[in-house]
Amino acid sequence: MPIPLTPRPATEADNDALWSMLRPVFRAGDTYAIDRDISREGALAYWCAPAREVWVFEADGGVVGSYYLTANAGGGGAHVCNAGFVTAQAAQGKGVARAMLDHALDRARSRGFAAMQFNFVVASNTRAVGLWRRAGFDVVGTLPGAFRHPERGAVDALVMYRRL
Amino acid sequence: MPIPLTPRPATEADNDALWSMLRPVFRAGDTYAIDRDISREGALAYWCAPAREVWVFEADGGVVGSYYLTANAGGGGAHVCNAGFVTAQAAQGKGVARAMLDHALDRARSRGFAAMQFNFVVASNTRAVGLWRRAGFDVVGTLPGAFRHPERGAVDALVMYRRL
Repeated sequence: MPIPLTPRPATEADNDALWSMLRPVFRAGDTYAIDRDISREGALAYWCAPAREVWVFEADGGVVGSYYLTANAGGGGAHVCNAGFVTAQAAQGKGVARAMLDHALDRARSRGFAAMQFNFVVASNTRAVGLWRRAGFDVVGTLPGAFRHPERGAVDALVMYRRL
Repeated sequence: MPIPLTPRPATEADNDALWSMLRPVFRAGDTYAIDRDISREGALAYWCAPAREVWVFEADGGVVGSYYLTANAGGGGAHVCNAGFVTAQAAQGKGVARAMLDHALDRARSRGFAAMQFNFVVASNTRAVGLWRRAGFDVVGTLPGAFRHPERGAVDALVMYRRL
């Protein structure tokens, strides 16, 4: 059931909201290849790294999701972008991720990127894999056992890619 | 024809030697997805980033090659490492890259890494692709047209991976 969302660029005033969304995701350690013990400062420095454009999405005045967009490489690889997404736990299953992805794809096109690549999609994160597939991403690489899932042990990570 | 090589950890005193090897490679822009106009400072900051262990290899008292070794991801991905290699132009074809790779694989094992991954091997860089293949790396991903080669236009980039 999609909910109405208002996207806007993130500011430092969103740091508490960002951390409240990132903390449980990073602490769980089952989707992002990020140190589970990462500090608030480290998480915000990662999410809002200087080269990254960061958006937040509001519903009913509260932040329910965020994504970053950035070039995935330099030089001859600078036409391919990368993005990362996080949804507030209370807003799961309401179309937030899909709305953010659509916004990110539009932003990427408007910035002249020719493709979007996800470098490390944990294969057991079937919700994300399914969403990216439905949005036109192909699995172009499988990294065998590249992720040690806290419950499942070694699982593959996928490289997913779509032209824009 | 392999030449005798002496590996040692890089120090700041190697910066001139590192830049003299990196400059032509980055300026050519046909193998690394790095801004071709990158500055000396930028190139050294990239090659010697804090998380990276950097080695140089000497022959006859001069530096003829360097590699870096680092974790390729954090959290559940921290058991996979990444490495990058550069050989002095005058030392090409003398087994320097292979010797550095063997050293890097040993270092990676001794540090407890379980696999090594190259995230972006330009497919037209057949020398590198052949070397990695002979050393047991598999192509586990193909990023379609992800590299804009200065002469060839769009070429694929490969993700290559081997367990240690």
